[in-house]
Amino acid sequence: MSILVSNFINGSVVESTSSRSADLFNPATGERRGQVQLSTAQEAEEVVQVAKNAQAAWQATPPLQRARVMFKFKQLLEENADALATLITEEHGKVHSDALGELTRGLEVVEFSCGIPHLLKGEHSLNVGREIDSYSMMQPVGVCVGITPFNFPVMVPLWMIPVSLACGNSFILKPSEKDPSAALVLAKLLKQAGLPDGVFNVVQGDKEVVDALLESPDVAAVSFVGSTPIAEAIYAKGSANGKRVQALGGAKNHLVVMPDADLDGAVNAIMGAAYGAAGERCMAISVAVAVGEETADRLVEKLKQKVEALRVGPGLGVTPENEMGPLVSEPHKNKVLDYIQSGVEQGAKLVVDGRNFNAGAPGYFVGGTLFDNVTEDMTIYKEEIFGPVLSVVRADDYQHAVNMINEHEFGNGTAIFTRDGDTARNFAEQIEIGMVGVNVPIPVPMAFHSFGGWKRSIFGPLNVHGNDGVRFYTRMKTVTARWPKGQRESEFVMPTMK
Amino acid sequence: MSILVSNFINGSVVESTSSRSADLFNPATGERRGQVQLSTAQEAEEVVQVAKNAQAAWQATPPLQRARVMFKFKQLLEENADALATLITEEHGKVHSDALGELTRGLEVVEFSCGIPHLLKGEHSLNVGREIDSYSMMQPVGVCVGITPFNFPVMVPLWMIPVSLACGNSFILKPSEKDPSAALVLAKLLKQAGLPDGVFNVVQGDKEVVDALLESPDVAAVSFVGSTPIAEAIYAKGSANGKRVQALGGAKNHLVVMPDADLDGAVNAIMGAAYGAAGERCMAISVAVAVGEETADRLVEKLKQKVEALRVGPGLGVTPENEMGPLVSEPHKNKVLDYIQSGVEQGAKLVVDGRNFNAGAPGYFVGGTLFDNVTEDMTIYKEEIFGPVLSVVRADDYQHAVNMINEHEFGNGTAIFTRDGDTARNFAEQIEIGMVGVNVPIPVPMAFHSFGGWKRSIFGPLNVHGNDGVRFYTRMKTVTARWPKGQRESEFVMPTMK
Amino acid sequence: MSILVSNFINGSVVESTSSRSADLFNPATGERRGQVQLSTAQEAEEVVQVAKNAQAAWQATPPLQRARVMFKFKQLLEENADALATLITEEHGKVHSDALGELTRGLEVVEFSCGIPHLLKGEHSLNVGREIDSYSMMQPVGVCVGITPFNFPVMVPLWMIPVSLACGNSFILKPSEKDPSAALVLAKLLKQAGLPDGVFNVVQGDKEVVDALLESPDVAAVSFVGSTPIAEAIYAKGSANGKRVQALGGAKNHLVVMPDADLDGAVNAIMGAAYGAAGERCMAISVAVAVGEETADRLVEKLKQKVEALRVGPGLGVTPENEMGPLVSEPHKNKVLDYIQSGVEQGAKLVVDGRNFNAGAPGYFVGGTLFDNVTEDMTIYKEEIFGPVLSVVRADDYQHAVNMINEHEFGNGTAIFTRDGDTARNFAEQIEIGMVGVNVPIPVPMAFHSFGGWKRSIFGPLNVHGNDGVRFYTRMKTVTARWPKGQRESEFVMPTMK
Amino acid sequence: MSILVSNFINGSVVESTSSRSADLFNPATGERRGQVQLSTAQEAEEVVQVAKNAQAAWQATPPLQRARVMFKFKQLLEENADALATLITEEHGKVHSDALGELTRGLEVVEFSCGIPHLLKGEHSLNVGREIDSYSMMQPVGVCVGITPFNFPVMVPLWMIPVSLACGNSFILKPSEKDPSAALVLAKLLKQAGLPDGVFNVVQGDKEVVDALLESPDVAAVSFVGSTPIAEAIYAKGSANGKRVQALGGAKNHLVVMPDADLDGAVNAIMGAAYGAAGERCMAISVAVAVGEETADRLVEKLKQKVEALRVGPGLGVTPENEMGPLVSEPHKNKVLDYIQSGVEQGAKLVVDGRNFNAGAPGYFVGGTLFDNVTEDMTIYKEEIFGPVLSVVRADDYQHAVNMINEHEFGNGTAIFTRDGDTARNFAEQIEIGMVGVNVPIPVPMAFHSFGGWKRSIFGPLNVHGNDGVRFYTRMKTVTARWPKGQRESEFVMPTMK
Repeated sequence: MSILVSNFINGSVVESTSSRSADLFNPATGERRGQVQLSTAQEAEEVVQVAKNAQAAWQATPPLQRARVMFKFKQLLEENADALATLITEEHGKVHSDALGELTRGLEVVEFSCGIPHLLKGEHSLNVGREIDSYSMMQPVGVCVGITPFNFPVMVPLWMIPVSLACGNSFILKPSEKDPSAALVLAKLLKQAGLPDGVFNVVQGDKEVVDALLESPDVAAVSFVGSTPIAEAIYAKGSANGKRVQALGGAKNHLVVMPDADLDGAVNAIMGAAYGAAGERCMAISVAVAVGEETADRLVEKLKQKVEALRVGPGLGVTPENEMGPLVSEPHKNKVLDYIQSGVEQGAKLVVDGRNFNAGAPGYFVGGTLFDNVTEDMTIYKEEIFGPVLSVVRADDYQHAVNMINEHEFGNGTAIFTRDGDTARNFAEQIEIGMVGVNVPIPVPMAFHSFGGWKRSIFGPLNVHGNDGVRFYTRMKTVTARWPKGQRESEFVMPTMK
Repeated sequence: MSILVSNFINGSVVESTSSRSADLFNPATGERRGQVQLSTAQEAEEVVQVAKNAQAAWQATPPLQRARVMFKFKQLLEENADALATLITEEHGKVHSDALGELTRGLEVVEFSCGIPHLLKGEHSLNVGREIDSYSMMQPVGVCVGITPFNFPVMVPLWMIPVSLACGNSFILKPSEKDPSAALVLAKLLKQAGLPDGVFNVVQGDKEVVDALLESPDVAAVSFVGSTPIAEAIYAKGSANGKRVQALGGAKNHLVVMPDADLDGAVNAIMGAAYGAAGERCMAISVAVAVGEETADRLVEKLKQKVEALRVGPGLGVTPENEMGPLVSEPHKNKVLDYIQSGVEQGAKLVVDGRNFNAGAPGYFVGGTLFDNVTEDMTIYKEEIFGPVLSVVRADDYQHAVNMINEHEFGNGTAIFTRDGDTARNFAEQIEIGMVGVNVPIPVPMAFHSFGGWKRSIFGPLNVHGNDGVRFYTRMKTVTARWPKGQRESEFVMPTMK
Repeated sequence: MSILVSNFINGSVVESTSSRSADLFNPATGERRGQVQLSTAQEAEEVVQVAKNAQAAWQATPPLQRARVMFKFKQLLEENADALATLITEEHGKVHSDALGELTRGLEVVEFSCGIPHLLKGEHSLNVGREIDSYSMMQPVGVCVGITPFNFPVMVPLWMIPVSLACGNSFILKPSEKDPSAALVLAKLLKQAGLPDGVFNVVQGDKEVVDALLESPDVAAVSFVGSTPIAEAIYAKGSANGKRVQALGGAKNHLVVMPDADLDGAVNAIMGAAYGAAGERCMAISVAVAVGEETADRLVEKLKQKVEALRVGPGLGVTPENEMGPLVSEPHKNKVLDYIQSGVEQGAKLVVDGRNFNAGAPGYFVGGTLFDNVTEDMTIYKEEIFGPVLSVVRADDYQHAVNMINEHEFGNGTAIFTRDGDTARNFAEQIEIGMVGVNVPIPVPMAFHSFGGWKRSIFGPLNVHGNDGVRFYTRMKTVTARWPKGQRESEFVMPTMK
Repeated sequence: MSILVSNFINGSVVESTSSRSADLFNPATGERRGQVQLSTAQEAEEVVQVAKNAQAAWQATPPLQRARVMFKFKQLLEENADALATLITEEHGKVHSDALGELTRGLEVVEFSCGIPHLLKGEHSLNVGREIDSYSMMQPVGVCVGITPFNFPVMVPLWMIPVSLACGNSFILKPSEKDPSAALVLAKLLKQAGLPDGVFNVVQGDKEVVDALLESPDVAAVSFVGSTPIAEAIYAKGSANGKRVQALGGAKNHLVVMPDADLDGAVNAIMGAAYGAAGERCMAISVAVAVGEETADRLVEKLKQKVEALRVGPGLGVTPENEMGPLVSEPHKNKVLDYIQSGVEQGAKLVVDGRNFNAGAPGYFVGGTLFDNVTEDMTIYKEEIFGPVLSVVRADDYQHAVNMINEHEFGNGTAIFTRDGDTARNFAEQIEIGMVGVNVPIPVPMAFHSFGGWKRSIFGPLNVHGNDGVRFYTRMKTVTARWPKGQRESEFVMPTMK
């Protein structure tokens, strides 16, 4: 049975009139699931108008009532968690428990957004001058757009949607064309939770739709998560069109292993962080920096055993569950294989080779791959691979490790494994990275904090969700008020005036 | 069928071993419903130990998980709303829709407490000195006690419970002995929501139990709502025993009607605010201050018609629903009748006399009562009546109205009705009252703001719920940290040291 | 005596090697004061490197110490207030008391920045998971650039500089080439206050320097205030180069006069707001919207008398002080005259004609000018004139006035004059403008609030100064930490391990 | 020359009419400096009335203006630092550099209070219901009282005064009768800074004055720092009189030395923390807990050498400066000697005996004293000595150390010295102490954080200075506003209505 994934506009699934579409595959089997429509620029603009029209009434709905839609949405997400996670696995490939984990992290942002009456508070100053008061109101910006990547088809949209909606905006989601189905489930659950039609919409498509959204004068804000070149282009184009944009790009996350680290703990942490979701996470650890040769030797030995023992295969229907699923697509698999080849050619030591891995299934599988002796000039060090490939770099000492990370183009996440308070504190202060783990391999901030990297991993001053998310999705209005006297004193002298 | 209302301790309903009990009545019929046990001091102390023992594990449960118990509790309250409201009416007497309204206001505090991961955040300062950081943690205080009044058997407990629990405390509720049943429903729903046994407990009783709780060295915080003399005594005694106490007392809430007011709007507002719940609300309007004789004449005329037309009767089972139910008890009814008599004797003009009102039912009914020409020296002006008795005071001018309110003993709520921005702003700034309505008759702050009066309507610096509630139920701990150097630089020079 | 205004780099005044310069004039006399150097792109990049090098040590200086430089800077500004204000008048033309007022508003941001230890606090969450903590640190972004307009040569730089510096950044100011001298005074006072060399620098120049700064990879953040076309271009270019940018543009600020307004108060307010600083303020009132014909007739009559009586002339050396000085330059004067002519040609009623005004002085004077019957299609309505020209528009009713403002391209400031609370509240909520006055003609937010408009008056999500300013000048870093167990339990069992 | 220290009331030094007085001594010489008057209860009440009368105008002064008085006060304190510090030494005895340090810590609270316009902000919620807004205002409480101890005659008053004044309160300081002179200098500098007369007052005295202040109905808030029995009594009495009270009491601060600590660093830290100001600090370290016998042996050996080498003598006029001065009084010296004797008698090992120390000066000197093998049942362990006496307790392991601290009556400060992140984190979370140092011996929170202990070291929910201080000195008022419609729509239809 082939599916056709369409748009969700003004409260209903609506087929696009576009003649263009893209194929959808199940990455664990390589089978074609169906197609996703690639909408037209005109349709994108029509969705913007739908969203714009619906927004005014939603803005006028008190935050307390908007929050209650989010409370209900949370409940519905929980009730539909298994089905949603299954859908993620079918289109993305990650194993079921990982898909459930993704959903939970998204759900936490919904929970955060339930507090919007508190989070939206402005400031009130009595007597900024004598009998003059000033106060601020955080009002919605209008129509918001989210352009989201294939690797988290539920979590990344949920970083944006609940905060934006709770703030009183309408929202248009442009999901990845690789796994677009989950977006429609979110849309249906939001409607079921009581969200008025037109406030949340999904438009499927590719660059044509994205460009139309970035050019529409009625789009106020754009949130993007994806690769750095696209993030940069979207930030530039959206900004040139006068919009506020937050664009999150690529990453090359280093995990530093100090000689005093709990090595077994570090190895376990690295395994999940490097190979979970087949490395297709912007917070995946792709570089392990071993400080000192002895540390490196012990680390690589322990990793080797674990990587060779990784259970790789389909993300559904296998007991016990596999630890790692396939890559998302055939082209992406080939790209990862090319990276591995380049590593070999540029002189890295291939400790575990996942290229000819047999997952017992016909999908886009690459086995866990481990390089040692990777150096800072190699392509596999400099670029984001987004696959199950971990590079071990050997640092001379602590400062070498820090410098390496600070000089890298990206600044999303990093971690250090140590027992030493001074080392951890110095690392946290000095490292030029937005999200830092101390003995935590994937330091994704909680929903009530904010997600965001540094350097070329983010464009725009505000991070995603948490207080920053609320600030991004609101405009500040500051009122200064005084009142003319006379009425309360005089009116009883001349009561006939009224 | 006679009921016996007992305690809820460590996850179960537990009968008291006490020989003492109090009768429970249905105020709409005067029938005896059953009895509530009056527990012993020893039982109170045992509950404290239960709560103390359960608290440590609950504190160690991350705030995110504690919040999820609150999310579930909200859902259960909604599912059980009608039954809870019915129970309120059966024991308190207020009409069903008003009982549902009470529940909603309580529910909003549960919703607020769902945001506890955000609300509990401490502050973090990098480099208070060179390489010295400082940060604060808001930890639970331990065992908290709530002593709550008969007039809101669900809302007032819910002002306290969700915030206290979400902060990681355990809680002991001592409900009013007049309507103690709702407390047990709350206990069961909290358990059903996943709260561990012993974290929330109910102990029924009177002064013996209260004194025991105030004297127990293991009680850290006491929240009280009731009359001012009791509030003051509890504040003094709890404070003398080293506890933090917030004690909210009585009120005499004035509503000022300015000549420029929307008079019909003001009259409608006054009717609900003065006679809703038969005036048994700490935020009820019991004094209408008409500014100027002409305003007063028009106001009294309009009020007279409305008061005479009030539908008074049982709170359940009548269609259309009555607007006002009975008073809570026979003694309280007699007290209110005495106040009315004193008003007549001290020279106020009794415009509508509710004393011999026939509600067509045998309960504790007093009809809507309206006085005109009340003056500041009369008992009915100075004291809180807590019945359906509205006093109209005629003020010479705006300033007279302000002075009257500022000189009154109580400072809970007040309101002004005007169209004039200057009048409203001046009133809001100058009035010595904690909660102020501008064209809003009962300005109860939302759950995400804080409830609390001024003067002798509150004892203690912190209000209830909102940020103040979180502050009340937490202790601040401030950490200042630096680290000795050496490890990260030296350890590779002498690796044998490890 | 002709002056040569140069750069301030690394703690010293440094002459540019550029061959290019621009003439400086005293607008009250038309005399040439001297020249300002127009630095080269290479010099701009050199300043960036100076600022970058100085920043690291400044960042490492604890916020408490950085604040103390701001405390001292405040004191020095107060001691040098008269001299600075005189300099402003000599180059910009505004009258002395107005220059002092500008300084005070700038000084308030310095005062605000003295609280930086408090303002920089991050958030700390204990137990985001069991024994896992998370906290945020707000670290400086690095090198910041301010590009500031001629109309507030001290205030606008001080909106940016103290906040940026207090946050631990270094700063490069590119002042207007029309009045560049005050920037050097600020630089000297900052040095005198103890700011290390290189942390604050001034580079004089025009588009060449601006482009170089926008292209430098070592500039992290750009703040701009000026006209909308330039603001938009700078936002686009800076964003395309990956920087965070806040760019504030033009304005057309409407003041609505309701029929119930205190008309004399409104007229006085309009006079200062429309003609103060010769209308060269981004918060100047350039449109008075009279609601109803009667209101309009009375308003225009009263304004006419006041405008005709305006004391216009040099800003220094006249007693009593003039109310309005000259325009900033000859070309700008001509541009304003052209606007007046276009108003006449397009059918507006010229009530007071300031074109041939004789100020008794040879400078760039235009007298106070008043138009009536201006309509929304006229050039003088649509464009920002930045001169002493007030347009009265007659609105049919309140809603007409609101619509007019909401449909205008700009969204900086607005005001309404009314006594009616409902009107003011509705206006504040519904108006699509960032800064709103209620009976306050120029509602510039205080330093501890934030300055910023809506629509095409601002580009970027964050406003200037206040909390938004601190957020703009900082990068968030979020740390998530857990620790491996073993040390505290085990080390005494096997002390030889250490 | 004998001095007579009097009151400061309504802007002037005023001699008390009281016949009672107390002698003042120079503790470094034992010479009688003069006398301090002990005012009468009636004088106390008169001061309250002065403060009450002055408060209204001060409250009406915008926070921005009040802040500027604090800015000026800071400047004056800096200019008078040396004289003030000298005065501290002359009456208290601590060495000059320590007195300057005390002043700096107080000054930082003045700096914090300069940010009051920001700190006083209330919250503003648009649309808590449809077209209903709610906002809070933090208004001053009225007349505040500070009762302060001898050990910090400048710092502790400055914890309270600037915050209270900046919030718009008036303040009455009752200083210690042992060193009352500095209070008068503060009063004069505040006046010089522009504080209106009557807003700050000093009343000298003892229990008679304190009782009068606690009983005055016009005192709203009381801040106390002193010993626990007095703190408890003042909290109870003030609370019983309906006031808000924060009362800080005694301490017994433990410093835990882990086996992995930087021992030399720990020893240096302990020396300053135990013997600085002769141990007369509520944050002094009086117990060093060595974990493990080996740690204890090394610690005691190193401490012994340092304690024996302590330079003890007069706090002024000696070069190089002494490290430790005399105790504050003869009776206090005798009390400390008794404690040492009890330690010996109860079996502690007296490693260094300071009892017969010869400081080369006739004052109240006790030499540095060191006990080893102190156990939890000894008087010197259980009670606060407030002298230069350090007890070393030997803990079996980490958990023993934690339990010991958690079971102690007091909960002010503590510290741990370790390199291990896990140990520090566990300690910070588990310890029942309000202020925790990690490798910081005296973890006094900065002015922008809040000072306060746990358990019987504090009474009342709010700490001193920082946000808590602002909350303590303000009352919350919450306004809920809606407006009647009609005016803006109707008035132009029937313009004759106005």
